[in-house]
Amino acid sequence: MRHLRGFASDNNAGIHPTILKFIEQANLGHAIGYGDDRWTLEATVKFRELFGDIEVFFVYGGTAANVLSLQAMTDSFNGVICSSVAHINVDECGAPEKFTGCKLIVIPSTDGKITVEQIRQHAYGVGDQHHVQPKVISITQASEYGTVYSVSEIKAITDFAHANNMLVHIDGARIANAAVSLGVELNDITGKAGIDVLSFGGTKNGMMFGDAVIFFNKSLSYKFKYICKQGMQLASKMRFISAQFLALLSEDLWRKNAEHANRMARILAEQLQNVSQVRITQQVQSNAVFTIIPKAAIPQLQEEYFFYIWNEEKGEVRFMTSFDTTEEGVADFVALLQKVLR
Amino acid sequence: MRHLRGFASDNNAGIHPTILKFIEQANLGHAIGYGDDRWTLEATVKFRELFGDIEVFFVYGGTAANVLSLQAMTDSFNGVICSSVAHINVDECGAPEKFTGCKLIVIPSTDGKITVEQIRQHAYGVGDQHHVQPKVISITQASEYGTVYSVSEIKAITDFAHANNMLVHIDGARIANAAVSLGVELNDITGKAGIDVLSFGGTKNGMMFGDAVIFFNKSLSYKFKYICKQGMQLASKMRFISAQFLALLSEDLWRKNAEHANRMARILAEQLQNVSQVRITQQVQSNAVFTIIPKAAIPQLQEEYFFYIWNEEKGEVRFMTSFDTTEEGVADFVALLQKVLR
Amino acid sequence: MRHLRGFASDNNAGIHPTILKFIEQANLGHAIGYGDDRWTLEATVKFRELFGDIEVFFVYGGTAANVLSLQAMTDSFNGVICSSVAHINVDECGAPEKFTGCKLIVIPSTDGKITVEQIRQHAYGVGDQHHVQPKVISITQASEYGTVYSVSEIKAITDFAHANNMLVHIDGARIANAAVSLGVELNDITGKAGIDVLSFGGTKNGMMFGDAVIFFNKSLSYKFKYICKQGMQLASKMRFISAQFLALLSEDLWRKNAEHANRMARILAEQLQNVSQVRITQQVQSNAVFTIIPKAAIPQLQEEYFFYIWNEEKGEVRFMTSFDTTEEGVADFVALLQKVLR
Amino acid sequence: MRHLRGFASDNNAGIHPTILKFIEQANLGHAIGYGDDRWTLEATVKFRELFGDIEVFFVYGGTAANVLSLQAMTDSFNGVICSSVAHINVDECGAPEKFTGCKLIVIPSTDGKITVEQIRQHAYGVGDQHHVQPKVISITQASEYGTVYSVSEIKAITDFAHANNMLVHIDGARIANAAVSLGVELNDITGKAGIDVLSFGGTKNGMMFGDAVIFFNKSLSYKFKYICKQGMQLASKMRFISAQFLALLSEDLWRKNAEHANRMARILAEQLQNVSQVRITQQVQSNAVFTIIPKAAIPQLQEEYFFYIWNEEKGEVRFMTSFDTTEEGVADFVALLQKVLR
Repeated sequence: MRHLRGFASDNNAGIHPTILKFIEQANLGHAIGYGDDRWTLEATVKFRELFGDIEVFFVYGGTAANVLSLQAMTDSFNGVICSSVAHINVDECGAPEKFTGCKLIVIPSTDGKITVEQIRQHAYGVGDQHHVQPKVISITQASEYGTVYSVSEIKAITDFAHANNMLVHIDGARIANAAVSLGVELNDITGKAGIDVLSFGGTKNGMMFGDAVIFFNKSLSYKFKYICKQGMQLASKMRFISAQFLALLSEDLWRKNAEHANRMARILAEQLQNVSQVRITQQVQSNAVFTIIPKAAIPQLQEEYFFYIWNEEKGEVRFMTSFDTTEEGVADFVALLQKVLR
Repeated sequence: MRHLRGFASDNNAGIHPTILKFIEQANLGHAIGYGDDRWTLEATVKFRELFGDIEVFFVYGGTAANVLSLQAMTDSFNGVICSSVAHINVDECGAPEKFTGCKLIVIPSTDGKITVEQIRQHAYGVGDQHHVQPKVISITQASEYGTVYSVSEIKAITDFAHANNMLVHIDGARIANAAVSLGVELNDITGKAGIDVLSFGGTKNGMMFGDAVIFFNKSLSYKFKYICKQGMQLASKMRFISAQFLALLSEDLWRKNAEHANRMARILAEQLQNVSQVRITQQVQSNAVFTIIPKAAIPQLQEEYFFYIWNEEKGEVRFMTSFDTTEEGVADFVALLQKVLR
Repeated sequence: MRHLRGFASDNNAGIHPTILKFIEQANLGHAIGYGDDRWTLEATVKFRELFGDIEVFFVYGGTAANVLSLQAMTDSFNGVICSSVAHINVDECGAPEKFTGCKLIVIPSTDGKITVEQIRQHAYGVGDQHHVQPKVISITQASEYGTVYSVSEIKAITDFAHANNMLVHIDGARIANAAVSLGVELNDITGKAGIDVLSFGGTKNGMMFGDAVIFFNKSLSYKFKYICKQGMQLASKMRFISAQFLALLSEDLWRKNAEHANRMARILAEQLQNVSQVRITQQVQSNAVFTIIPKAAIPQLQEEYFFYIWNEEKGEVRFMTSFDTTEEGVADFVALLQKVLR
Repeated sequence: MRHLRGFASDNNAGIHPTILKFIEQANLGHAIGYGDDRWTLEATVKFRELFGDIEVFFVYGGTAANVLSLQAMTDSFNGVICSSVAHINVDECGAPEKFTGCKLIVIPSTDGKITVEQIRQHAYGVGDQHHVQPKVISITQASEYGTVYSVSEIKAITDFAHANNMLVHIDGARIANAAVSLGVELNDITGKAGIDVLSFGGTKNGMMFGDAVIFFNKSLSYKFKYICKQGMQLASKMRFISAQFLALLSEDLWRKNAEHANRMARILAEQLQNVSQVRITQQVQSNAVFTIIPKAAIPQLQEEYFFYIWNEEKGEVRFMTSFDTTEEGVADFVALLQKVLR
């Protein structure tokens, strides 16, 4: 790769300098392991300032945040309703099934989102012992296609869920990108919108590693410390996850990083719209741009920038921006694309 | 705590400066996620220099290294033989059972080690479908009591295992401490001694987080990339684990850190032997010192230094040293103890 | 219910008299438990006469036969491809996921069958650790809609599977009905057609309880005795399952029962075709007749005969015939239907 | 074997004639599957007459009754305390661990029983996320050594459990033998003694197959219908399990069978006490007689009677009596033993 920064994924970016600084500052003497340290205490306070009366736990990564959240919400005979393109359905090597025993009840989705109408049709068999019992609706915000649920769309889902004895989980690997896209606070699209449990992603927003599991529905949280340890997710030197979250939640870094990444995606999309052979296939609402580009151009582009082909057949590719994408980087990339297409 | 460094655990120490430096240096531009980066490649090369023709995978922590190693070696109807004080038996909240389905076959141990004679008595029921089928012997090196298996003790176990269609795993959270204690190379007590799979610990030897799973028996490794991802242990920004291992394996840092910690434990033990009311209860072969001290003295000591009471009834406490323990720190601590006991 | 026999399910029928007689005859003195008895030996011989060089194990029921078959064929990170209406997908309360950890990869099906073309599209992600690894194709024969795979359709699936490093399982709860429907021997649509493992159903064909798991691919069978015991399926008084299979396999009882049930379904279908307001929705190839009947008629019919509404919205109902359905029973039922519809 | 009846196990006996008769009588026409039939209803009524306000579910066998009971009482991070010789620990091929994820916390036992004092020492780590959380105490009544817990011993255990936020399960494969041994009603040693869940064994007391899971603590039962189906234990032709329980609970057949078996064991023990080279090693309180006999005599005895060597080294063997053991059978057997020993 000639270029320092590509468009493959926001997890290809490194550590935001502020976050790295917080890690360095936390590296002072001894601290009790497993979370009984002052950084973890402070990060918890910060999370409560954002989200109110919640419980929060830190895990190593997003797969664990999702899987262990689901474990806290389910019995093995439950079903978890999600979209066909949900990360928990297609990109976690079956971890949800292995760890929770639950079936994923999959709703075909073309834009990454699912609706109450679809959910209603899939939430059947209640009380029938032959069927898995639908218990959790898991949505991804921002979705795997970069689209964003509005506050009212989320509320419709949580209202339906709670009226039907179900719970709602958000895979929030990019929850920050969604909030800034909507111009709302994080709590507006989570706790205040009736969400029960949130996987709050840090890695894709500038952290080295680490996700938080946030229980708005605190009655679900009392077992989580055991689930977390048994789930192989209790960091012994926990302070170094906590310090990263402290960095992220201080001075609105989570917001600034997400705003930047989203803005870079918008700029990229705008410039791509001017390229005649390129068609944008999804609404650009966060930090992803899905496009169909001429297949022949892909190999040449990938010589200089790494990015993923999303749909081989259609020639659909995904470009992700991140906290460290630059305007120059976008311009250079589009210039190369134009050159290749010429 | 008045003192920067205690004796609670080697995981209470922070990040070794060299390792932190390697993290900082790896924080440059974008890198492909999930291990397809140059740091991971280089760390793999380093591991092969140490251990020969092995496969190596990186995970977030020690519990996962142990549990996923066992998963790679077993079917759900197998039994895993270990000591009663093994970390996998008492300190992982049942993660091995939950994740592998296996029963742990527990051998009572007073010094943290188990012998072939004991293993032989517990490895019964072979071919009988009513019994779990003994398949893996898991030993901890250095053990939870700080004792160390000699090369010949390990070979005796691996010989027995392989003669009986079984495999041997090492929980090597402190494998470096064991090697320097014996004055041998890491491979002498692992691959060359017939070990099949090793959990190679990094966190307790100066890393921020991260363990490696090393397959000497490469036939067991081909499924591991799936086990690792499904086991919620595939770091997206993998380079930051790999870079830490690069640091640890460069310029013998793993050895220096372990030598230092072991030496601090020896010094601590020597000084404690001069305190009349203190009795050392286990051989000091690595970086742990187990002692019985007057119960009345414990609260006052714990006001200034954190450490764990191992056996409430006996008044047995554990002191761990680490890469950053200092001779002054040891002397201060023993001085305080003497003062308290006067 | 006024009538002794309904059309709800072939498992609503009781025990075939010959099978009950075999149970009574096996009830003589003591026999060693768990299968080390002469009935089990004889039943095994009978199965080998039918199927050749196979391994066979007996379990309590069909769910277990399916789930444990899949366990023998998979690792937890594998995917099992099946139709959307497969019993393993919709009627086993998530047992396959819970017990194997695998994801079911679901292919939408309107007639209960799946094709190689569909399978090909769903068997992706091979070698990619983020994806479950497709490993087993599970088909139901006769299908949940009463349709039957032809010999060549099965061979196409097994050829595809084996060419792609996959295995094929048949849920054969009604395998007898399928064989007689096609006019072939049981082995023609199983072992000789390349099937690896078969759940051979007894309960729906006149047994009190009991299913057999048959390994054509014997390399998959060596762990099964442990899987079976750990799977809570090893009957202590095994002789009473074995004696039932002996009955079923003696004098072609399996065939006679299935032929009778299929014939009753054909007669029922023929008579229903003469009822103007009734529309048959699936091909009648075994012992099921799916029809759309006027919704208003259902409650009155169900006062006298039990049967299942398959699709509430469409008014589709399922009628199953069994070894003890009578021509008079069919005629009476159709007469009642005509009366109700008038 | 020359003799119809041996002393290997009470599960080597066949079906009691009354129970077989009830099966035959239930074989009349169609019945709705999965328990919605009149036999299941009647058997449930009978169980409530015996045990009061309970919930009851029927499963195929004892392993499932135990494992699914435990699943209903635990989360995966719990520990289940039991004796070292408990069937769930040594004879179920690890099914409890596989299915519940829990660790078994094993208390060494020489007579098959465990005491509150022992339990207290093993129920540690409460609230510590590194430890499995002790949740269930599982005792076997009558025990695997034929010994019987008194009412007060059980109450001591249930009192301890409930005072410590734990639950108590009985593996009652031979609960009938225990009740008649103590001369009390079944409820006196279960529900009235504070037991939460009981595996009520039928197979070893004359049934063909079938166990019941009885919830005295009804708050634990609401998920069980799903657990049972997902646990591969929901019989489609349920009436044939229910009819067997109806037989067992009618006219005190459960009691008569157990009384007979116990009496045969007492007679056998009395006669063995007169054989000078035989030493009885456990109290004969139910239908088992454990003895040390000269090793040289074993092969000759086993030519005519099947029985199990319990402890190869000590020459300890187990003789089990059952509902169909006869006084003549016992006398013949002892006569043979005497002849062999001469």
